[in-house]
Amino acid sequence: MLESDMLPSPLDSSTSYLSTSTIVALCLFFALLCTCVIVGHLLEENRWANESITALFLGLCSGVVVLLVTKFHSTKILIFNEDLFFLYLLPPIIFNAGFQVKKKQFFKNFTTILLFGVLGTVISFCLISLGAFLLFNGIGITNLGIKDHLAIGAILSATDSVCTLQVLSQDETPFLYSIVFGEGVVNDATSIVLFNSVQSLNFSSINAITVLKLLGTFLYLFCTSTALGIIVGLLSAYIIKTLYFGRHSTDREVALMMLMAYLSYMIAELLNLSGILTIFFCGIVMSHYTWHNVTGNSRTTTKHSFATLSFIAETFIFLYVGMDALNIDKWKTSKASIGTSVAVSSTLISLVLIGRAAFVFPIANIANCIKTRESTKVEFRSQFIIWWAGLMRGAVTIALSYNQFSKSEIASAEDSALMITSTIILVLFSTVVFGSVTKPLIEAVKLRHSKPDISGSTDNQEDLRLLFLESNSSVNQRRSTLSLLRHYPTTTVHCFWRKFDDKFMRPVFGGRGFVPVAPGSSPAEDEIS
Amino acid sequence: MLESDMLPSPLDSSTSYLSTSTIVALCLFFALLCTCVIVGHLLEENRWANESITALFLGLCSGVVVLLVTKFHSTKILIFNEDLFFLYLLPPIIFNAGFQVKKKQFFKNFTTILLFGVLGTVISFCLISLGAFLLFNGIGITNLGIKDHLAIGAILSATDSVCTLQVLSQDETPFLYSIVFGEGVVNDATSIVLFNSVQSLNFSSINAITVLKLLGTFLYLFCTSTALGIIVGLLSAYIIKTLYFGRHSTDREVALMMLMAYLSYMIAELLNLSGILTIFFCGIVMSHYTWHNVTGNSRTTTKHSFATLSFIAETFIFLYVGMDALNIDKWKTSKASIGTSVAVSSTLISLVLIGRAAFVFPIANIANCIKTRESTKVEFRSQFIIWWAGLMRGAVTIALSYNQFSKSEIASAEDSALMITSTIILVLFSTVVFGSVTKPLIEAVKLRHSKPDISGSTDNQEDLRLLFLESNSSVNQRRSTLSLLRHYPTTTVHCFWRKFDDKFMRPVFGGRGFVPVAPGSSPAEDEIS
Repeated sequence: MLESDMLPSPLDSSTSYLSTSTIVALCLFFALLCTCVIVGHLLEENRWANESITALFLGLCSGVVVLLVTKFHSTKILIFNEDLFFLYLLPPIIFNAGFQVKKKQFFKNFTTILLFGVLGTVISFCLISLGAFLLFNGIGITNLGIKDHLAIGAILSATDSVCTLQVLSQDETPFLYSIVFGEGVVNDATSIVLFNSVQSLNFSSINAITVLKLLGTFLYLFCTSTALGIIVGLLSAYIIKTLYFGRHSTDREVALMMLMAYLSYMIAELLNLSGILTIFFCGIVMSHYTWHNVTGNSRTTTKHSFATLSFIAETFIFLYVGMDALNIDKWKTSKASIGTSVAVSSTLISLVLIGRAAFVFPIANIANCIKTRESTKVEFRSQFIIWWAGLMRGAVTIALSYNQFSKSEIASAEDSALMITSTIILVLFSTVVFGSVTKPLIEAVKLRHSKPDISGSTDNQEDLRLLFLESNSSVNQRRSTLSLLRHYPTTTVHCFWRKFDDKFMRPVFGGRGFVPVAPGSSPAEDEIS
Repeated sequence: MLESDMLPSPLDSSTSYLSTSTIVALCLFFALLCTCVIVGHLLEENRWANESITALFLGLCSGVVVLLVTKFHSTKILIFNEDLFFLYLLPPIIFNAGFQVKKKQFFKNFTTILLFGVLGTVISFCLISLGAFLLFNGIGITNLGIKDHLAIGAILSATDSVCTLQVLSQDETPFLYSIVFGEGVVNDATSIVLFNSVQSLNFSSINAITVLKLLGTFLYLFCTSTALGIIVGLLSAYIIKTLYFGRHSTDREVALMMLMAYLSYMIAELLNLSGILTIFFCGIVMSHYTWHNVTGNSRTTTKHSFATLSFIAETFIFLYVGMDALNIDKWKTSKASIGTSVAVSSTLISLVLIGRAAFVFPIANIANCIKTRESTKVEFRSQFIIWWAGLMRGAVTIALSYNQFSKSEIASAEDSALMITSTIILVLFSTVVFGSVTKPLIEAVKLRHSKPDISGSTDNQEDLRLLFLESNSSVNQRRSTLSLLRHYPTTTVHCFWRKFDDKFMRPVFGGRGFVPVAPGSSPAEDEIS
């Protein structure tokens, strides 16, 4: 190139407005993201790999390259940033999950989800804390206080809903998906309460009232977060329906949906609620009302752009975790021998395995005893998959671990660093090993083929019953609903909800069938059910 | 609420993972963005207001409220951040402009656009610098060096393409839109060269070679930036066509398009090129090739989601500029009397008016002399609108002004602060006054109704000629093309390009008509032309 020889002074010095390190980091990340998308596409048919594992490996590899290039010095590009994760990466993922979730399936299993998410997390938290307390002294980690042990319990009880989304398929195993993912969302609220309590409770005066207070906090957090999400969702539906945005531009509708969804998360965080619960329910309400009030183009756009943003955020997180695994400062600080590291990590992994087994199987069997109909019971192989699919730990665990141990007040910085590196090993191991085995495991126990049929036929029976109920409702409504409520509680509640929805909610907030379809607009080809 | 009385300790202290100030700022911004969207929708029919003016006013109002609430202390929420602007807000806007631009119209006026964008900017830069040098001493600003005067020239020559996009309509005044917006994009490359040169040139030895070198730099910058954008765009088309992403998921296609577009901008910034030019041409190539290789759903999604992201970024910028206007520290530092502030600001505004008039009218008339056909000439009222619509200065001006004057080495911090506050006044004034008058002005000179007809009929004539040319091509190709090239250069170049495109480019990179349409996919209702 001749021009490059003629390059005058203006371009020689770096006179750009932007700092070079930021640009280099962004370039690297976006190039890696593109690679992940392409490699993930090529590996689509491979049943052992998935996008998160690809991203983890690519992150690890590039982390190694960066370390080699910078000669084991610069690790600034790799440091995990909690703000980035909680403010920008997590909200789109959870919102999209709520937006695309099969609502019928989700609410049908609501009781089971709550049991797993609340009771299960508490059991797991207690067991892991106790295990850490008893076992760590044996390995030689003596500098951790009771707060740290309890924090470990809370950190390791936070399941990774992001990874679950990638491993389980909503279409192939709808029942398992709704249970495991729903549990993950509720689990988040529980973890927040537990983690915050651990950090701020005064442990000199623990009594029955403290436990009651914790329960009260959880109820408060759960109800207010959910209510906030529902209110913001309904508000968006009302505004879009009343002002009829589509008249002028489809972009304004899409923008308003995005902005209000994100706003709900931010308000929840501002009020110290669970932003994840809020944005999840906001997504559900938006897909039920708001989505039906917008033009056909907006429907297609929102459906796919929310999914795309969520997909990019997920890939970004795993890349990030992969690169972060080589946080060389922490590895240097911990000074632990390989033996100690392996011992601590495998202890943590065993505790996670036991802690989850200790609540999945008992709770599932208790739930089975309560249920009357054979088809809704959770059979053993499903229980096994629920146990297995919830073993993965991801970015939430790492973020919480940094939060606890990078500014811990305990004397030894070495043990704190060891905890962080062990958490990283746990996350890598669980994502790669548990994650890659889940798909083949589901195929092996043949849930893929048997479960949808059962679930489908159940749905059909219920739908028939619903029709029957509605046609006879004028004649002997009181008797039939009472007896139905006793025998088929979920169906009856659903039926009441439908009536309420059609009579009061949809006329105000819009929804399927309650918004006139403009003749020019082409509807999205497959509806969100 | 009973629960709130029972709130135990965990929620009393702020134990969130995130810093409260960030959350408050984000909450405020997103709430304001939602308000902007709604108010902008309600004011849609109003011809004086537009979204940018609404956003500016809302930003100003909330800035006042924040100042009052914090009792004139905290201004952290309001500080303009160059990184945020150049890394995250500008790229989606310019990419979307390239993606949605009417390519035929743009390339037809390419020579005129280049003349305005390069020669015009240089003329404006010289005049404004000279004017500032001569006039500022009279007002009493004596501490600015020659570099500062030249920097003022470069800063005030950077037109605001974002605001132009909002004021001019591509559908109603396609000719003016392509000229003014195209000029804005080319102008960016010129401004970068000028600004960087001013900051790094050694002024003790200015001679003819320096000027030649500057010209060389500009050519280098322009060609490499454009080439980079085209290469990345073609690469995305090739990858998506070859790997056939739509087979598995529409989200991956959309993600890859977004990521590669952003990557092109980042690579350009990394290589110290003009990222804006690169991402603009990347957008053009993507809309010509890549967009036709994806599924129907992806087409609708990309078209609307890029527009939405651009819309959000635009609104955000104007909100930001509005809030930033109350950067109380700078106002305190400048210590200038109201008289001096007004004098400096009005001097700057007059210089911008004169500087633009000094190139728009001469260049337009020179271009008219060269053109042979009456219909392609730029009539006087169009020249007037071009002059007027390019007077607005926006976020780029503010960003450059901070860059120059917040870390200036000159002795007086007061004069620097005065320059920044005066720039802010200029931006507010030009956006509100010039911006709000443009729409009524266009209506007043009745360009809205006369121009599209002329342009439409011209297109038809040319299309007929193209058809004629293609049908006769086998008989007397050589003679007819030669004579056509002389009489209708643009049309003939376009014809050659079409043949080359159909023969070599589209078979490799895909494009309209070169990708088999899957039977299930519904095409986007209105194509990008």
